[in-house]
Amino acid sequence: MSEPTVYRGTFIDAPDPGQFRVRENCYLISSGGTIEFIGENIPGNYNSLPVNELGSGPVIPSFIDLHVHAPQHMQMGVGLDLELLDWLNQHTFPGESRFADPDYAAIMYPEFVKALVKNGSLRSVVFATVHLESTRILAGAMDAAGLVGFVGKVNMDQNAPPALTEDPSVSLEESLAFCGEYAGHPRIRPIVTPRFAPSCSSALMKSLGEYARKADLPVQSHLSENRSEAAWVAELFPGSASYTRVYEDHGLLKKGALMAHGIYLDENEIELIVERKARLVHCPSANINLSSGIMPLGAYIDCGVPLGLGSDVGAGHSLAMNRAIVQAVQSSKLLRILGGGDSARSVSLSEAFYLATTANGDYFAGQGMDNCGSFDIGKSFDALCLDMNLPPQAGLSSLLVLERFLYAGDDRNIARRILRGRDI
Amino acid sequence: MSEPTVYRGTFIDAPDPGQFRVRENCYLISSGGTIEFIGENIPGNYNSLPVNELGSGPVIPSFIDLHVHAPQHMQMGVGLDLELLDWLNQHTFPGESRFADPDYAAIMYPEFVKALVKNGSLRSVVFATVHLESTRILAGAMDAAGLVGFVGKVNMDQNAPPALTEDPSVSLEESLAFCGEYAGHPRIRPIVTPRFAPSCSSALMKSLGEYARKADLPVQSHLSENRSEAAWVAELFPGSASYTRVYEDHGLLKKGALMAHGIYLDENEIELIVERKARLVHCPSANINLSSGIMPLGAYIDCGVPLGLGSDVGAGHSLAMNRAIVQAVQSSKLLRILGGGDSARSVSLSEAFYLATTANGDYFAGQGMDNCGSFDIGKSFDALCLDMNLPPQAGLSSLLVLERFLYAGDDRNIARRILRGRDI
Repeated sequence: MSEPTVYRGTFIDAPDPGQFRVRENCYLISSGGTIEFIGENIPGNYNSLPVNELGSGPVIPSFIDLHVHAPQHMQMGVGLDLELLDWLNQHTFPGESRFADPDYAAIMYPEFVKALVKNGSLRSVVFATVHLESTRILAGAMDAAGLVGFVGKVNMDQNAPPALTEDPSVSLEESLAFCGEYAGHPRIRPIVTPRFAPSCSSALMKSLGEYARKADLPVQSHLSENRSEAAWVAELFPGSASYTRVYEDHGLLKKGALMAHGIYLDENEIELIVERKARLVHCPSANINLSSGIMPLGAYIDCGVPLGLGSDVGAGHSLAMNRAIVQAVQSSKLLRILGGGDSARSVSLSEAFYLATTANGDYFAGQGMDNCGSFDIGKSFDALCLDMNLPPQAGLSSLLVLERFLYAGDDRNIARRILRGRDI
Repeated sequence: MSEPTVYRGTFIDAPDPGQFRVRENCYLISSGGTIEFIGENIPGNYNSLPVNELGSGPVIPSFIDLHVHAPQHMQMGVGLDLELLDWLNQHTFPGESRFADPDYAAIMYPEFVKALVKNGSLRSVVFATVHLESTRILAGAMDAAGLVGFVGKVNMDQNAPPALTEDPSVSLEESLAFCGEYAGHPRIRPIVTPRFAPSCSSALMKSLGEYARKADLPVQSHLSENRSEAAWVAELFPGSASYTRVYEDHGLLKKGALMAHGIYLDENEIELIVERKARLVHCPSANINLSSGIMPLGAYIDCGVPLGLGSDVGAGHSLAMNRAIVQAVQSSKLLRILGGGDSARSVSLSEAFYLATTANGDYFAGQGMDNCGSFDIGKSFDALCLDMNLPPQAGLSSLLVLERFLYAGDDRNIARRILRGRDI
């Protein structure tokens, strides 16, 4: 156990969605990576320790990206005049096929990991591709960078180009191999990752569901992103009562299962998700770019759906979670104005920030990792120190400086990155 | 007249909205800042000149920002959970009041100008504040940086805090003074700038309209951004048949008049704008941030409304016109999906790029400045050289590299900025 460290800074977080919590010029004590104290005065027994200064800008919980495709980092921003299924076929599947070559992965994945770090996403839940060897390279690169996260070898055995279509038994076997290698790893954990219902046979999903249950592993997939996709799922799985039921019927809608998107869900599906304690991951940028639609975020928050926020790169066009936060706010405003009906409401900046930090952090705690996402005693000390380089005459409060960072800042304004009490 | 210069590069522009024009590895010859030739082989008489290499990335027309508030640069991203009128009163008016102090302007405006250059907006049409001295400082800073643009001293004589409320005769007089100083300037031109109808008395607007007509000066203002604002205008000007008519009735809706927003317009207003050859400036980012709504951009394009694109900083949260382009595309997609009815259509990336370059460039030609915005013979050679720093293995075509820049790039990817044939 390392010595406790005393930090000083202005800490801003959102333990509750309704508002930011601002603690100006406070001390935070971290021991073994965990927050032991936060307050205005150093407790007597720590008085002799040197003070590690975090600067005069806001210090916020480091970002967590709950849905991102590592192999799509290179195609970020490309082909976005298309909708989901065309975009998959014309850009994404050809791009992912290249990861059959581990040498290609060894060039591309470290670039992705560097970009995650740069943007302050020190924890993430990541899709790789179907390729075992490349997935190992991705997990290794994240480990080497000191990041914390979940990595999934993708499973696909139908409705994909031949280069990405696995034999179902090999698909399961290779997932088992990867999951076995990273079970109990202190930072990088495996996650069972059927891509989405259309690309997985019923038999494959069933075997993955059983394996996830037996090995007590988390699951991630995609759910109801686009109307054409949802209609296709109904055709492919006539035995299931809804898109959500497809996962439920194959044992995949377990506690904590991360389901990206969830735009077009009926009441029964919402109820089932809440009951199973699965989590919908909102990916606003991707949903706009692919003309998919807007998740009714405000309504979901109000009825207690477990939620998170993701960049969804490459359909999302930035790894910066501050931009995902802004797009979540923007989307909710437009849904209210344009077509959400009476129940649609805007979400505030603090609510969206809460998703990217506290809510996404709850996911890690729920999956047996350390609790994180806000500056509370017992949580991991994960932080970004911001510096907006404003002339002193600007005279903005710390909270307004944070607002400015979220809207107008970028990785250059992150002066320092701390994960589990260690600089990254 | 300087010697002609021979450049080599891959030029991408959008002379027509429907698609990008890509000319790989071509020569462009600029003489006195004007494009004389572009093609695959250097004409014989230029063969002896050295070749100025523009790099291997795409070279695009430099960006033009047709609506931006210089004094709001410092408040970019701040207070955006509010709607227009509250945001003006709580953040914008107090912020603009500080420009009464020329020393404050002398610190803040050069920062704004630096940011314009950094983001590749080498031409712009800018709102200052009501303050004459500060407006001079802004125009001087733009001039010193070698930029081309229009600068407006703002006019306001009602419905504003006392610090920003001018005496109407002083307001007119100071506008005359500023306009006189910059008349005929080779780069920085004056523009008559009544803020928006609510903040101008009928008498003030009438005198500004007359002055603009006599002195043959351009006009800019705001039009129908927000439903509450539009309702307020109807109350304030019961004698005018519509918001657009308020400007028409005061002689301000002249040829080329720039009207920012224009979200809620009826058919008669659209017809009048087309007839007068005024130009609506779409500011998608600001319109989303302030929950104003979405301009029916596709429909306006299809019925021949003169259009342009603006960042509208500070309600827009970035000076980067590539981000304004993406938000224009995103907005149009959402309008189609959520509430635009049958007539709403998405605009493509090339259409939005066309607005920020060719269409915005047409504005300059129409106002007696040099023609610009695409790489055509006779136009000003204004360019940005892009470098996305991609590993060679990425294997993207020049066009896809441009798409990636527009979605995922930033000022760091602009390797070189050229205006009228000179490096900025």
